[in-house]
Amino acid sequence: MPYERMKAFFAEWVPKIDRELYAFLEKKVKEQTDPYNKRVVDDIYRFAKAGGKRVRPTLVIAGYLGARESAPNEVIKASIAYELLHIYLLIHDDIVDRDELRRGQPTVWKSMMDHYVRGDLERHDAEALATIGGDLAETYATLALLNAGLEPETAVNAVRELHEIAERTGYGQVLDVSLEMTPIEDVREEDVLRVHELKTAKYTMEGPLHMGAQLANAPKEIFDAYSKYAVPVGIAFQLQDDIIGVFGDEKKTGKPVGSDIREGKRTLLIVKAYENATDAQKKLIKAVLGRESATAEEIEEIKDIIMETGSLDYSKKLMEELMERGIASLETAPIKEEVKDVLRDLAEYIIKRDR
Amino acid sequence: MPYERMKAFFAEWVPKIDRELYAFLEKKVKEQTDPYNKRVVDDIYRFAKAGGKRVRPTLVIAGYLGARESAPNEVIKASIAYELLHIYLLIHDDIVDRDELRRGQPTVWKSMMDHYVRGDLERHDAEALATIGGDLAETYATLALLNAGLEPETAVNAVRELHEIAERTGYGQVLDVSLEMTPIEDVREEDVLRVHELKTAKYTMEGPLHMGAQLANAPKEIFDAYSKYAVPVGIAFQLQDDIIGVFGDEKKTGKPVGSDIREGKRTLLIVKAYENATDAQKKLIKAVLGRESATAEEIEEIKDIIMETGSLDYSKKLMEELMERGIASLETAPIKEEVKDVLRDLAEYIIKRDR
Repeated sequence: MPYERMKAFFAEWVPKIDRELYAFLEKKVKEQTDPYNKRVVDDIYRFAKAGGKRVRPTLVIAGYLGARESAPNEVIKASIAYELLHIYLLIHDDIVDRDELRRGQPTVWKSMMDHYVRGDLERHDAEALATIGGDLAETYATLALLNAGLEPETAVNAVRELHEIAERTGYGQVLDVSLEMTPIEDVREEDVLRVHELKTAKYTMEGPLHMGAQLANAPKEIFDAYSKYAVPVGIAFQLQDDIIGVFGDEKKTGKPVGSDIREGKRTLLIVKAYENATDAQKKLIKAVLGRESATAEEIEEIKDIIMETGSLDYSKKLMEELMERGIASLETAPIKEEVKDVLRDLAEYIIKRDR
Repeated sequence: MPYERMKAFFAEWVPKIDRELYAFLEKKVKEQTDPYNKRVVDDIYRFAKAGGKRVRPTLVIAGYLGARESAPNEVIKASIAYELLHIYLLIHDDIVDRDELRRGQPTVWKSMMDHYVRGDLERHDAEALATIGGDLAETYATLALLNAGLEPETAVNAVRELHEIAERTGYGQVLDVSLEMTPIEDVREEDVLRVHELKTAKYTMEGPLHMGAQLANAPKEIFDAYSKYAVPVGIAFQLQDDIIGVFGDEKKTGKPVGSDIREGKRTLLIVKAYENATDAQKKLIKAVLGRESATAEEIEEIKDIIMETGSLDYSKKLMEELMERGIASLETAPIKEEVKDVLRDLAEYIIKRDR
């Protein structure tokens, strides 16, 4: 079975994480004494249940087990803080990006608009309630961590780690949103890679592993080892995501072909294509990128430009180099072998997946 | 001099608080490596400098000094976490309420719209950047507290206190926003008082005093004493605020007469007036409340109804009862006399102010 060790690891920990996560949120729903807050907190709970592979809390546990023999219950309780942080950031992100669906279910602001206890809401009011709902999820993340039963010193370090991660992710978000408003000719490759580093590599890969290391009071060498693996692999993950977003099979990705192009995403694919394009091609990119009404034919033309300019190969090559570097770093890493196996599988899965 | 002890207390502590606050934010601005984040963080800093009486961090220090002889520098450093929390919540609150000005200066979302580094933004994009800016300020609040140099156990308790306060304030916000969307005849007095308790009394008065007590590792009796003072006085503060909002002098309040009525705020004044109104008066209230275009004459008619129905007297009487109860509770409170004096002055100031 491919990715056997990774799958076994997730199969072992995800149910335990879900049990703690759902118990925490169920309690919060029950605590509400008015129908308005009950509705909002219930919607956070619904959003949490709506799917998600629990990659981040599972990596928190992997990060812990890279340094220790076994993970006590407090570590599972602490790991849900990362998923709650993720829920908080997704709730705000969906407002920022105007996304109405996530994993086939309404996003929180959309749900506020559709089902609110007092009938129809204006869009602004729905976004307002969802913004506050996100803020509530932030308090849940921190409180879950504080109430996990950790030693005070460990708790302090873990809360600091969580907020430093949230801070960096915020900077990544500002940069991402800002680049989408920046003309394509002014977007530099390094800005795009910086967004990938902050919003994906550090947030989804390095952050959880570091949080686990923090919970284990691990030495600096372990933090460094996780960074050497997670940052290149995380950037590669995002590059692959962008490739699938443009060249992937609609049936597998669940996203319409060309949606990244119609949304005007500043991917390395498009930035590099623009850089190497002829004047005619540049004109076409500028005309199509970020235009909701772009035709299927126009999308195909952009895809051709991405290939003809060598931009697709450039992204693929960079992705492979980063992936190799990340995997190679594990060889001498001072972390437990079982965790190395899981991380190797994960990296391979990332590069080979098509959805 | 009236309120002498309060004024002296603020005069002593506010400059120290500001010094720490500004040093913290200046450092965050300097840390930014791209112009987009520099702009956002700089705007948080501008917003922090734009005024504010630092009531909350000063009350953190009062809460500490109610239990201890003197406040070391770590406590001042920790107190700015409350102001940063306040900045975070105000940034989001101004988006929620669509406020363009605060203390005569543009709010953060408005500033993003006016001065962004890349020219004009759509309103949604400006709100998106401000939402993320608020989220960044949340991380600053928590990190300021964690980096104040407290003992780990104290830090854990203080961070928990801060997030429990933010959680309760979030519930108050949801309730407040929801009530404004609820027809006036369905808004109950207890809902309005609950918003006042969560959004004003606990957030602005009890929360800071409890945070100070937490930093002092004070016994439960001190927390209880602060609650007995702060909750009634805080609700009274909001009732007075609502009275000034409708009957105050525009020149002193800086807010146009009737703006609370035009915005459709669910104050006790209006809820109680509606409850006791004649059918004709009810009809008028429903026609005017929440209508931006209401005329000066209509506003005067609503003010008359608030007086004729006895609603103004009702609010005044409740406010005075709460205030007396809060002040009386100080007599037997196990807190230091100097702090009691400050809190008595503060309560008296609240009830007598006209702006």
